[in-house]
Amino acid sequence: MKILKVDVAIIGAGTAGLSAYRAAKAAGASAAIIEAGDYGTTCARVGCMPSKLLIAAADAADAVGKAPDFGIHVDGDIRIDGRAVMDRVRRERDRFVGFVLREVRDIPVAERIQGHARFVNDHTLAVADHTRVESKSIVIAAGSRADYPDSFKDLGDRLIISDDVFDWNDLPKAVAVIGPGIIGLELGQALHRLGVHVAVLGRGGRVGPISDPQIRAYALATFSGEFTLEPDAQIAHMRRHGERVAIGRAQPNGSSEIGYFDYVLAATGRTPNIKAIGLDNTTLRLDAKGVPLFDHVTTRTTSADGASPIFIAGDAGNFIPLLHEAADEGRIAGSNAARFALGKQVKPGLRRAPIGIVFTDPQIGIVGGGFHSMKPGTFATGQVSFEEQGRARMMLKNKGLLNVYGDLATGRFLGAEMLAPAAEHLAHLLSWSLQNKMTPAQMLEMPFYHPVVEEGMRTALRDLDVKLRAAQVYVSKAA
Amino acid sequence: MKILKVDVAIIGAGTAGLSAYRAAKAAGASAAIIEAGDYGTTCARVGCMPSKLLIAAADAADAVGKAPDFGIHVDGDIRIDGRAVMDRVRRERDRFVGFVLREVRDIPVAERIQGHARFVNDHTLAVADHTRVESKSIVIAAGSRADYPDSFKDLGDRLIISDDVFDWNDLPKAVAVIGPGIIGLELGQALHRLGVHVAVLGRGGRVGPISDPQIRAYALATFSGEFTLEPDAQIAHMRRHGERVAIGRAQPNGSSEIGYFDYVLAATGRTPNIKAIGLDNTTLRLDAKGVPLFDHVTTRTTSADGASPIFIAGDAGNFIPLLHEAADEGRIAGSNAARFALGKQVKPGLRRAPIGIVFTDPQIGIVGGGFHSMKPGTFATGQVSFEEQGRARMMLKNKGLLNVYGDLATGRFLGAEMLAPAAEHLAHLLSWSLQNKMTPAQMLEMPFYHPVVEEGMRTALRDLDVKLRAAQVYVSKAA
Repeated sequence: MKILKVDVAIIGAGTAGLSAYRAAKAAGASAAIIEAGDYGTTCARVGCMPSKLLIAAADAADAVGKAPDFGIHVDGDIRIDGRAVMDRVRRERDRFVGFVLREVRDIPVAERIQGHARFVNDHTLAVADHTRVESKSIVIAAGSRADYPDSFKDLGDRLIISDDVFDWNDLPKAVAVIGPGIIGLELGQALHRLGVHVAVLGRGGRVGPISDPQIRAYALATFSGEFTLEPDAQIAHMRRHGERVAIGRAQPNGSSEIGYFDYVLAATGRTPNIKAIGLDNTTLRLDAKGVPLFDHVTTRTTSADGASPIFIAGDAGNFIPLLHEAADEGRIAGSNAARFALGKQVKPGLRRAPIGIVFTDPQIGIVGGGFHSMKPGTFATGQVSFEEQGRARMMLKNKGLLNVYGDLATGRFLGAEMLAPAAEHLAHLLSWSLQNKMTPAQMLEMPFYHPVVEEGMRTALRDLDVKLRAAQVYVSKAA
Repeated sequence: MKILKVDVAIIGAGTAGLSAYRAAKAAGASAAIIEAGDYGTTCARVGCMPSKLLIAAADAADAVGKAPDFGIHVDGDIRIDGRAVMDRVRRERDRFVGFVLREVRDIPVAERIQGHARFVNDHTLAVADHTRVESKSIVIAAGSRADYPDSFKDLGDRLIISDDVFDWNDLPKAVAVIGPGIIGLELGQALHRLGVHVAVLGRGGRVGPISDPQIRAYALATFSGEFTLEPDAQIAHMRRHGERVAIGRAQPNGSSEIGYFDYVLAATGRTPNIKAIGLDNTTLRLDAKGVPLFDHVTTRTTSADGASPIFIAGDAGNFIPLLHEAADEGRIAGSNAARFALGKQVKPGLRRAPIGIVFTDPQIGIVGGGFHSMKPGTFATGQVSFEEQGRARMMLKNKGLLNVYGDLATGRFLGAEMLAPAAEHLAHLLSWSLQNKMTPAQMLEMPFYHPVVEEGMRTALRDLDVKLRAAQVYVSKAA
């Protein structure tokens, strides 16, 4: 067995791991990065990138369908070429993955190790049966994988996860998506718009990451007006039926309906890849799910003696499973792991205002901790509907509801939840304002062009400003 | 002749005038508003609103044309129904105008006067031959109108201005647009995408409001790759030819080309409606074009004795002919006119960071004073091309170039010029940052989701940040 001694060892060469590697090297430490599977990040291979490519095709199909409302007619049939759709998705996906592979190749061979890493102790990793890595500090950036109940396995090859969709050569006829979370909603709506018969079924009523009951109800009504979405479906049974899957669900009227699908897409959540890395051999404290406890401003884990040399970043820590957060966490973890290895104090890293976007149509946007993070009675809500919003109506994108929140005590903007046109852009403006600690009154002093969707957001901010003023909390500096 | 005595008289019931009226009343003054033409704002009747409706139809046609690149095929012809296109434009336009008319109707009859207003002196207006308005202060909000050289009049009914386009019942076959400014580019590209044969011709090389030579060159190459755009056309002659217009233009190779068009659309600029309001009878100081000199933070005009009771707002002052600026100026003018009438000091009003957007595809965005407003050698430029930008490429919107500017002395963000996908949204983020006096380093600490077009903007900001650091001007607070 080969022995490698480095300052910082990193488990996982995904977004967080690569970011940690660069940060550790930039901080003057020696480093090695260990990858158990194929190179290429979750985002590029099976996540944000291919899903947005599929959505781009779905949007194109939707635009063709809506063109007659503008006076643009198609004299003939609209034909969705599933092979061409998937070919572009895979081709462009491969291109994005290629950029990651190029970055990996730029890492000196001596510093990248392929194989499954397991902790031997807080400072030592065994990689497969070929290498022992001894390091002053370690970054866990092992990522996550799709997770589903064991009972689903009975479906055999009819059960797929989101990863599998992006290797399709053609579009299937019918797919049941189990789990109306971010992935389930994005893929479910996109496949529906590409002509696939889709049912998105959940349990408990959740619709994406929305926690505000008004926004959730609006989103549910909007999406279920377009495709089958039952966030609290009563699934009686789900079983193989030849080359298909039969799903029986109880209807509100007491009857039962059976649907047949080519695939069941399990979008029931993701689990950190930390079960098989030998955490038992470390001194780390774990939460109920077996994930190491850690300080999210330094990414340092907590050990029994309080002197942990181990940091955690990205989906492995499952704090916020988003690429930009994984990159930030990797940077903080790599930098702090290097500081620790070089005998320096660890430091809080830059954390940004929370922003979450779901690329459905309309899009979902969450800024700040969301409705569920706020204590009732401490905040006011400003609202706008996009149904009569000028610019949105011009583009026939006038579906949406935005709630913005303000703190009754400080008068500050707290965040927002929305289903809205251009939510990805509105969410950026709002999250920058949140990070800048602005009040709605200050936000209303900023420029708003005309006619833009941002003017809808301004209506909500005006509503919030009036409510905060009525609470006589703060005096605006507005003219 | 009827005599009306009020605190504040307002000439013009457009965006600026209505805003001034509301502000004057809110400040406790009595007010009267005088309109010479039809009610309804320039923006709603013939400006931002109907043009964006036409553009929405053009975008729909473009989306249908691009769908095959995503695997969405149309087995048959794409037919642009000009009557249906124009019907929606007019119907929705009328709806927007209806909102303005409703607002006008809510003004008490005694406070609105219809007729042409002329100054008798600094405190007196004669309206047509029926009313004499004596007021303590006056707001000029008379708006602007399309302007063109006298020689164009030889074209008779073949000469149109942008106002006329929105009353069309159908689309013509061929239109020459003279003037590649904001209106010329927007309408020219939209008509082209709606199947009209279009040539956009200018003199002097101007492309919209762009002053940065790199961005202008990129925009020219992009637009002229799609439709005929000659910003420095050598027009030899332009004359009626039966029911059409023949335009002869010299080609770079010395030859001459004659084009035939159904209409010549004069998009050669706008002029303030101040020639016929009797400014000679006031003590106001005028600039070379006859426009009253005024202080743009108070909107108060300058008189010989320095005690002018006259304020000016919106296109009449021609400072920045944009709706949101007109609304701001109206608010400031109305508020200050009321203060003046009530014996109080006038106050500086809220002015926002400059933002300009042209709704072409890609869009043009200008933030701050633009390239031409900065002194060479005092600023650094960060750049990004959108040709390989991830999200833009996914959506097949990967055309664009963005330059962001930073001040070498203070390290602050100064503004931007761009041709870019989603420029309307990027321009909001950038203009809010400008108004918040941020540095590129601080902007880079803000959240950027993935994958979004805003990440392209981040690349340009990183480039700018590196250049500002290299100039050792400031030390970033970035982690």
